[in-house]
Amino acid sequence: MTETTAPQSPQDRGPDRPLPSPPIARALLAGNRRAAGRVISLIEDQDPSVESLLRSIYPHTGDAYVVGLTGPPGGGKSTLVDELTRVIRDAGARVGIVAVDPNSPFSGGAILGDRVRMMRHAVDPGVFIRSMGARGHLGGLALATANTIRVLDAMGMDVVLVETVGVGQSELEVADTADSTAVIIPPGLGDGVQAIKAGIMEIADIFVVNKADHPQADKVVSDLRDLLRMNPGGQEWTPPIVKTIATQNVGLEDLWMRIQQHSHFLARSGELEHRRRLRLEREIVEIAERRLREQVLTPRTETKEFREMLALAAARLMDPYEVAEMILPAGASARR
Amino acid sequence: MTETTAPQSPQDRGPDRPLPSPPIARALLAGNRRAAGRVISLIEDQDPSVESLLRSIYPHTGDAYVVGLTGPPGGGKSTLVDELTRVIRDAGARVGIVAVDPNSPFSGGAILGDRVRMMRHAVDPGVFIRSMGARGHLGGLALATANTIRVLDAMGMDVVLVETVGVGQSELEVADTADSTAVIIPPGLGDGVQAIKAGIMEIADIFVVNKADHPQADKVVSDLRDLLRMNPGGQEWTPPIVKTIATQNVGLEDLWMRIQQHSHFLARSGELEHRRRLRLEREIVEIAERRLREQVLTPRTETKEFREMLALAAARLMDPYEVAEMILPAGASARR
Repeated sequence: MTETTAPQSPQDRGPDRPLPSPPIARALLAGNRRAAGRVISLIEDQDPSVESLLRSIYPHTGDAYVVGLTGPPGGGKSTLVDELTRVIRDAGARVGIVAVDPNSPFSGGAILGDRVRMMRHAVDPGVFIRSMGARGHLGGLALATANTIRVLDAMGMDVVLVETVGVGQSELEVADTADSTAVIIPPGLGDGVQAIKAGIMEIADIFVVNKADHPQADKVVSDLRDLLRMNPGGQEWTPPIVKTIATQNVGLEDLWMRIQQHSHFLARSGELEHRRRLRLEREIVEIAERRLREQVLTPRTETKEFREMLALAAARLMDPYEVAEMILPAGASARR
Repeated sequence: MTETTAPQSPQDRGPDRPLPSPPIARALLAGNRRAAGRVISLIEDQDPSVESLLRSIYPHTGDAYVVGLTGPPGGGKSTLVDELTRVIRDAGARVGIVAVDPNSPFSGGAILGDRVRMMRHAVDPGVFIRSMGARGHLGGLALATANTIRVLDAMGMDVVLVETVGVGQSELEVADTADSTAVIIPPGLGDGVQAIKAGIMEIADIFVVNKADHPQADKVVSDLRDLLRMNPGGQEWTPPIVKTIATQNVGLEDLWMRIQQHSHFLARSGELEHRRRLRLEREIVEIAERRLREQVLTPRTETKEFREMLALAAARLMDPYEVAEMILPAGASARR
């Protein structure tokens, strides 16, 4: 463990980059927590002003390393994230945490967990925590998460931990916002490791078997080893399996070391740049799609002509694909 | 209970509508189960041939009544759906079931439950069951579900039950494919009914408290009543609260009656047509969006010029919004 280094001013990162004009963006870049909270709320509300804000902070981002932590319920993720945060803080880095729970309108769990954490880390200016539920993010939880990560990055967090609760499609998309992804496997999983093979296994850079003192933990580790042996993938990186007991502070330093190793591997191999560029490309296409929807498609659905075609489609005299053709701009109709 | 009526031929529904040319579509419209299974697999695989298939069956759809059944885990949804199926079969209608589990790569539950059901209903040609997981539906589980419903509709199912497991955003979107939505509330829910207020409460046309013999069931019913009193909404339809014990065949006839009442209410008030038209409009916009993505945006991201801009954005010398502007077709750029 090293001494906590003095926090560097976020502006130090890009002295050649002009400061943005809106006061809230300037406050955010100076590390102001209230400004960060406010901007994230604007992101969550899909406020129209958020685009220019995000544009103005964009030049000051890209320095934070993003670590995703995901996996099925019961793995002790929250405690693990808390203890990992402590280890990273001890190493001198500032930590942003985004806790995403697509089911939160039901569980209320994220909110409660958030409150507990807030108390634990309340006195530490080097930690900033935000939880997000699915509400108000119809189809855009991953985008909202990516923008929130950028806010934490801009305010000077060196590492951003993205914790996703649950294992559905939305969680996979959220996990895709990370540079390195740790998948936390609960020991004693009903159907064994085989049951969680699909989807989540492919995104794992590191496996964590938390609750390593559980009687089933070694079984999970050996199942994972078998699985990795069957799917070597031919890559240069073989996901390590890290055993932790977060409640007893066991294995967290090892996990942090593995994350750093993976980060170095990504940087060295050019894979970090590649992954980030793929994400950026997806984001650009999403922005373009939203703009086309808002400025081309939606206005065309507001015409009398469209209402008439919709009525014909409802009466089964046209089909949805034909009507879609009619609202497309020239040059974008089907090639058949 | 009435005698099962003789199954009407699906073609009877639209004698003026031409039969589609692909043999698989003809087989589907004749009620062939293997053809239906095959078409749904094509939908799941996002096979390019599926569009023309869906277009050719579209004129023969719109007759099935779609009932969504959703809610948090632990409510006994599967058994409820099974017993409700029996009641609807006894009333003489054919029943299609789509069981959607966005988490299925993990739980495997849908597959297991499906097998049990298959055995129970194996001898009944008036029931067709299909389960769907999230895999392969990146961002499109709701669309795949809507198309699957249409296949069941086209093959002659009178009622389609859409059961969604879980309570996340994807489930809300799937629930949105139904004409009537029943929300099943498990008794003895941790934080009480308040915890599930958000999101799911707004989509409920009918509340079901299954496991009505549970000691906490009456508490849930009175909590729901309080909630409904606080949110009268000013609508003409107040969601009824139906108590059932699916494992003992209690309350299912009542539930079916309430669903029919709601269906009549929707038809009488014009709300059924309104809801269906909104869904159709959303579907048309989605089709148009996909086409724009595939035929305008994606080709433009494959140019040398785009790769160069992407590199500039990665270096923070452009921002994602600027690059998005460059790939938009003329007339779709930002108005500012």
